[in-house]
Amino acid sequence: MPGNTFPLTVAIATLLLAAHACAETDARASVTTQTRTWRKAHERAIVDELTEFLSIRNVATNVDDMRRNAAYAEQMLARRGFRTRQLSAATDAPPAVFGELLTPGAHRTLIFYAHMDGQPAPVQAWLTDPWRPLLRDGPLRNGTATVVDPTAAAIFDPQWRIYARSASDDKGPIVALAAALDAVRAAGRKPSINIKVLFEGEEERGSPHLAALLDMNRDLLDADAWVLCDGPVHSSRRMQMFFGARGMLGVEMTAYGALRPLHSGHYGNWVANPAVALAHLIAELRDEHGRILIPGFYDDVRALTDDERAALAALPEVETDLQRELGIARPESDLRLADRLMAPALNVRGLAAGNVGADAENAIPTQARLSIDFRLVPGQTERRVRERVEDFLRAQGWWIVRDEPRSDERLAHPKIMRVTWAAGYSGERTDMTLPVSRAIAATLDRTREQPVIKIPMLGGSVPMSLFADHTGRPVLGVPIVNHDNNQHGSNENLRLQNLWDGIEVYAALFTDLDW
Amino acid sequence: MPGNTFPLTVAIATLLLAAHACAETDARASVTTQTRTWRKAHERAIVDELTEFLSIRNVATNVDDMRRNAAYAEQMLARRGFRTRQLSAATDAPPAVFGELLTPGAHRTLIFYAHMDGQPAPVQAWLTDPWRPLLRDGPLRNGTATVVDPTAAAIFDPQWRIYARSASDDKGPIVALAAALDAVRAAGRKPSINIKVLFEGEEERGSPHLAALLDMNRDLLDADAWVLCDGPVHSSRRMQMFFGARGMLGVEMTAYGALRPLHSGHYGNWVANPAVALAHLIAELRDEHGRILIPGFYDDVRALTDDERAALAALPEVETDLQRELGIARPESDLRLADRLMAPALNVRGLAAGNVGADAENAIPTQARLSIDFRLVPGQTERRVRERVEDFLRAQGWWIVRDEPRSDERLAHPKIMRVTWAAGYSGERTDMTLPVSRAIAATLDRTREQPVIKIPMLGGSVPMSLFADHTGRPVLGVPIVNHDNNQHGSNENLRLQNLWDGIEVYAALFTDLDW
Repeated sequence: MPGNTFPLTVAIATLLLAAHACAETDARASVTTQTRTWRKAHERAIVDELTEFLSIRNVATNVDDMRRNAAYAEQMLARRGFRTRQLSAATDAPPAVFGELLTPGAHRTLIFYAHMDGQPAPVQAWLTDPWRPLLRDGPLRNGTATVVDPTAAAIFDPQWRIYARSASDDKGPIVALAAALDAVRAAGRKPSINIKVLFEGEEERGSPHLAALLDMNRDLLDADAWVLCDGPVHSSRRMQMFFGARGMLGVEMTAYGALRPLHSGHYGNWVANPAVALAHLIAELRDEHGRILIPGFYDDVRALTDDERAALAALPEVETDLQRELGIARPESDLRLADRLMAPALNVRGLAAGNVGADAENAIPTQARLSIDFRLVPGQTERRVRERVEDFLRAQGWWIVRDEPRSDERLAHPKIMRVTWAAGYSGERTDMTLPVSRAIAATLDRTREQPVIKIPMLGGSVPMSLFADHTGRPVLGVPIVNHDNNQHGSNENLRLQNLWDGIEVYAALFTDLDW
Repeated sequence: MPGNTFPLTVAIATLLLAAHACAETDARASVTTQTRTWRKAHERAIVDELTEFLSIRNVATNVDDMRRNAAYAEQMLARRGFRTRQLSAATDAPPAVFGELLTPGAHRTLIFYAHMDGQPAPVQAWLTDPWRPLLRDGPLRNGTATVVDPTAAAIFDPQWRIYARSASDDKGPIVALAAALDAVRAAGRKPSINIKVLFEGEEERGSPHLAALLDMNRDLLDADAWVLCDGPVHSSRRMQMFFGARGMLGVEMTAYGALRPLHSGHYGNWVANPAVALAHLIAELRDEHGRILIPGFYDDVRALTDDERAALAALPEVETDLQRELGIARPESDLRLADRLMAPALNVRGLAAGNVGADAENAIPTQARLSIDFRLVPGQTERRVRERVEDFLRAQGWWIVRDEPRSDERLAHPKIMRVTWAAGYSGERTDMTLPVSRAIAATLDRTREQPVIKIPMLGGSVPMSLFADHTGRPVLGVPIVNHDNNQHGSNENLRLQNLWDGIEVYAALFTDLDW
């Protein structure tokens, strides 16, 4: 009964398909399961390796320190069979570490990026030495948390955190990558792709040599896509993936007053006060709602696509909890956090003039200093932003100098500003609909119980634009660290559960990718 | 010929009058000449006494230090035959030193005021230790000047300067008063008045106990007038006398942001930046031309009299040289310096948030601090200024707290400012036409080749209003120190010629006053 055979055939085919899908799902689920099982048996070793790495001072301005970090990272890779090399674009720059692990038969290559350097950490602002890592039983509460002794613990509480400069930004992800490979191998699996890594040594300085490094090592660093292992997961603690990141650009400004400190009674009201002039400039540069007031500043900004808008609209609500957690009554804008992070930003990271408190003298300061970090978005270039800022300064009557002003300059120009730009880079957004974008997103979704959050562009800066501009390859971000890690501030930390999750996610990317 | 006798009588009378006037002028001139002669023979001893006094640390917050200063000043007076007492209005306050030297037959009494304490002196900002006085061969040029060894010098160059905290403000005048008395006695003269002195120990803190001290010692401190020995001479280096002084009022403000430092990329543009809010507040408080923008702030200001206006108009031009000396292209106002000092002033003496330069972190600061000193003029009271400032803060949306904000306050108020006022005092102007005003002015004029400059009100603050309000006596100022003394700043100094002139001026006031 041919009439009857058809349904049976369909049924068998359906069954076979279902069995295949199931087997595939099982196989994919099992890398996560296997990784978890392995990790639970090796937590102390993973934490020990991270602790050792975090004990090496890593402010990028100290090249010797960064060489020690590079040597350590290179050994981590070599121990795991990577072919390694240190890369340098300048003899006095911190070296980067490259590693390559080929998979016979693999037709795709991913290159994983992370950085070994950290922000400066003024020791007096930290509860303990930023380069003497220790575990505490959670986030700081009223500035304190209980220190735990890992050697005395039978099991590690996943809410514990490891405190040290770069615990989260960005040594934690490097150790997660290494542990993920260990887990994959322990499970008897082999990667489905060729794996390359690039660990940079001066990201927090604005990656001044990264462009040259990419240009000089074009073949070595070539891959189908970059995976950036930097930045935090979503503030809801759900895993996230980002397709872009704002760029950054730092600038130091010094406004000058009289040659010597002057009694504010005998001269105040007649000799200009550089601290006041600087305050006026800040008020002219941006309003209290974060809007940058420099004319035309937003003209270059590339608009969001419909896909990107839809991704933003799908993000979970975080604002209410975040306000409570941060102790703020109101954000500076009525827009949602994620929407605000799509725009360029001007942050006053430092202000200094005269003295405050018990040291305050009744004098007119001779200078006032302002430190700003800009966040840039696609469409804006560093050059154009520098021009717009300096044009604006000149329009406000400032005479721009690059060194200490000379006497003749002081007498010729009533408002003098020394302006020093740091190296920076533009913002970048990778197309969310590319095959590699979809493949990575799908793999990540399969490792988690909830779908991974897709962010069109991260608020924080990773030099995605440099990778895109200098290699022409798509750039995607898969961060793993907790959002409340005090990154860039004092008492930076990494929550252990984030480290564990990161190992699972990277293991899945090593073994399960196909597009 | 009676017709002829009249002219002869008139001629004789005229001759007699002229001779008398001439003798009187000679007698008066000679106290200056005699003082000068004596001083030239005793320069090293005078400088030694000042050096010893300046070696005693004298920040008013350290009461023990101030007790050592009081003991030293008391011994200076006792050695010269003064009846002395230490006066205290509170057990934990720096004591003041009172001294009295009666002149048999004198029917007038002057009380000379000076202060022993100095502004804080952050050691790292000074070329040498602020409390290890030394002589240099002039003002600092490019931050340096040659140190001279007084023991090796046959004569002292009057352009030499003694460098130390309080060399000018205000221990130099105390030593000048003592030396003036030594000179008068060495010349075999006796004072024409009863001399009282009051040396305060906490003027730079805003004289928090002076009012109580005046009230508690009303009879002891009574005199026909106060002569304040504080502040600098005119910037033309001509001797000056002042009939008033602006008052002062200090305030510390702290604006609060999130509870912890936040990555400026991941939160910047959404979490408010307290440094930006503070900059906007400063721009709202005053413009770049020194005008205070708080509504009604100038309403209480008492207008100048015609005499005061005339005195201001008679002041020498100083602005051109001063601009060159200070390295400024333009003052912040088109008005003359002296005219500007007749108005209230708001000086930003300190600003601090986050970090600048190599220590700058890409983080949103958790707080921003502002230190302001106000200068007040007659008609304004401290209470009223505090009210106007706080009303203005509230109108700008600030919630004012007196301590660290609590969690519930943080969550209830988007803009929180901690406001801490220091003690201060009002401005004061004594009538320039009073007999004692005219008598002192005339005596000073006679000691100098050029008439002494008469300033209706000094820009700097001395607590004249407290003296006037609490004793009901006229208050006048006879300063002696150089205007370019770096008073309140680093590397404070006293030019020797000013010390020598001061001794002559005070000697004349001791011996030549009559009204």
